[in-house]
Amino acid sequence: MTSSGSNRLGEFEAIAKLFAPLAAKEPGALSLTDDAAILDLPFDEDLVVTVDALIEGVHFLRDDPPATIAKKSLRVNLSDLAAKGATPRAYLLSLSLASWVGDDWLTQFARGLGEDQEQYGIALIGGDTTATPGPLTISITALGSIAKGMMIRRSGAVAGDCVFVTGTIGDAGAGLAVLKGGGGTLDKNERAALIARYRIPQPRSALGPRLLYIASAAIDVSDGLIADLAHIAETSGVRIVVEAARVPLSDPFREMFGGDDEAIIRAATAGDDYEIAFTAAASARARIEGLGFPITEIGRVEKGEGVVLLSRDGKALKLSKPGFTHF
Amino acid sequence: MTSSGSNRLGEFEAIAKLFAPLAAKEPGALSLTDDAAILDLPFDEDLVVTVDALIEGVHFLRDDPPATIAKKSLRVNLSDLAAKGATPRAYLLSLSLASWVGDDWLTQFARGLGEDQEQYGIALIGGDTTATPGPLTISITALGSIAKGMMIRRSGAVAGDCVFVTGTIGDAGAGLAVLKGGGGTLDKNERAALIARYRIPQPRSALGPRLLYIASAAIDVSDGLIADLAHIAETSGVRIVVEAARVPLSDPFREMFGGDDEAIIRAATAGDDYEIAFTAAASARARIEGLGFPITEIGRVEKGEGVVLLSRDGKALKLSKPGFTHF
Repeated sequence: MTSSGSNRLGEFEAIAKLFAPLAAKEPGALSLTDDAAILDLPFDEDLVVTVDALIEGVHFLRDDPPATIAKKSLRVNLSDLAAKGATPRAYLLSLSLASWVGDDWLTQFARGLGEDQEQYGIALIGGDTTATPGPLTISITALGSIAKGMMIRRSGAVAGDCVFVTGTIGDAGAGLAVLKGGGGTLDKNERAALIARYRIPQPRSALGPRLLYIASAAIDVSDGLIADLAHIAETSGVRIVVEAARVPLSDPFREMFGGDDEAIIRAATAGDDYEIAFTAAASARARIEGLGFPITEIGRVEKGEGVVLLSRDGKALKLSKPGFTHF
Repeated sequence: MTSSGSNRLGEFEAIAKLFAPLAAKEPGALSLTDDAAILDLPFDEDLVVTVDALIEGVHFLRDDPPATIAKKSLRVNLSDLAAKGATPRAYLLSLSLASWVGDDWLTQFARGLGEDQEQYGIALIGGDTTATPGPLTISITALGSIAKGMMIRRSGAVAGDCVFVTGTIGDAGAGLAVLKGGGGTLDKNERAALIARYRIPQPRSALGPRLLYIASAAIDVSDGLIADLAHIAETSGVRIVVEAARVPLSDPFREMFGGDDEAIIRAATAGDDYEIAFTAAASARARIEGLGFPITEIGRVEKGEGVVLLSRDGKALKLSKPGFTHF
């Protein structure tokens, strides 16, 4: 673990000691006392690597619980690994510390990471701590592994495949709406469930590696179901047709927004779901059901390009949200 | 390559396209169009991984040339890999973009990365782009590889070893002093040479992998020669004695500060040298000379703890710089 920022050096050494227990189980972390870390991968596996940064005021608020911020920072990366079929192995933490961050905050942040390390079987192996005059910025690089050559890509969808998605869609967006004062008809538990979906992603880490040899293409749903399927459509060179009526919605979401086309458009363009959208041959349906995870078939892959969301009467719904104008 | 920051999505897709040529030679980068990248390591090698963040106003200034900022961001990481004996393989770029960053800046930044990729044989394999309300923040995760189990650690120094350092020490600090108006007696070329040492690190990437089977411990000199040797002393559980008269100084540095004990203390505590300090058995001296790199023997490893800088008359010099008070 390295650090910089001139006169705060002693402080940063204390921080390195605070994070050292998170590296205790991974020999390659060298207790965070070296310039670099070592990862000894099995000879028949590829490294799968991804990075995501979260910024105060953009991805979280200063007053959010530090453990929640820690978990969100780690889990957005775990979600990427899961969508690729990879098993999490280790991560590096690049922390740009705003002046308001104190010992209490850091202790709770480290506790949040520790809890998730237990849950997801991943360990801290390195990092960098720097003082910033700006907002707190957390950049995590997650390292996973997968059988050589088997990473599930965005580019493998072919015409004739079916389209699937895990869990329910739109809950994180609904959670944000609740935080902004919406959801007056919901009871306390329903509100809490939606807010939890917004605050702490639940990456599909247990499912991801089981999609190997099943999914032809996959992506984690972070920008929004339609936008993310558009990435698969573009890299695979196909058209994806989603039937609005099949998009899985949670009970609290339906309670809040109903289930008509407008509600489904809201869900499918809201983002932050951290579910996995994937394509697979129709012949894989039985195996997918046999996995025992909540997975819904929502559409099909055709020749062509782009993503179409079909209403119940078979018409293409108009998606006007900024950022999706190219559909 | 992922991106976030709401309404700048279209802009970030343009940025991903700008960086895509930097990933063209590395198949595992998947043209930066997937959630994660793949690195297929040789079966007999370990992954060596390190991360460093550079922040506007802390590590560079807004007006610094973008290509210089790019190279510094990459090279501080390459220096870590070199000190570990690792061969650079690939890197991930986490970019938190301040609002003042425009297309021109990004184009020049990408050009700087491209030039260094050619020079150091490394390729971009993934990244994340985010809008920040704060300073431009660049976090790079560098991936290298090394024969399994052979990474050179900080912890391998033993009593009886000799201490070596590459190149010359203190030039980056002197370059900063020149930028602040010092160095009036230097000619233009000398000033330029020192400033270059400050602005753009020259990592010892060609040497690093050749120190395998030679160095017992190594570290890149970034905090300052004495501070970094103290890291080796601490993790190895030894005492390191450096003879001030043997610390290698450049001609421009001597021209500016002379070569007395005070000048040497300045050099050995200045930081940002990005040379490699390492320990090796006395029996390795001939092989070290045979490497054909500028390497100077500067001291010895003893039983005990801490780092001592000995003056010509054998007295321990007092080092009062903040951050070094524990010696």
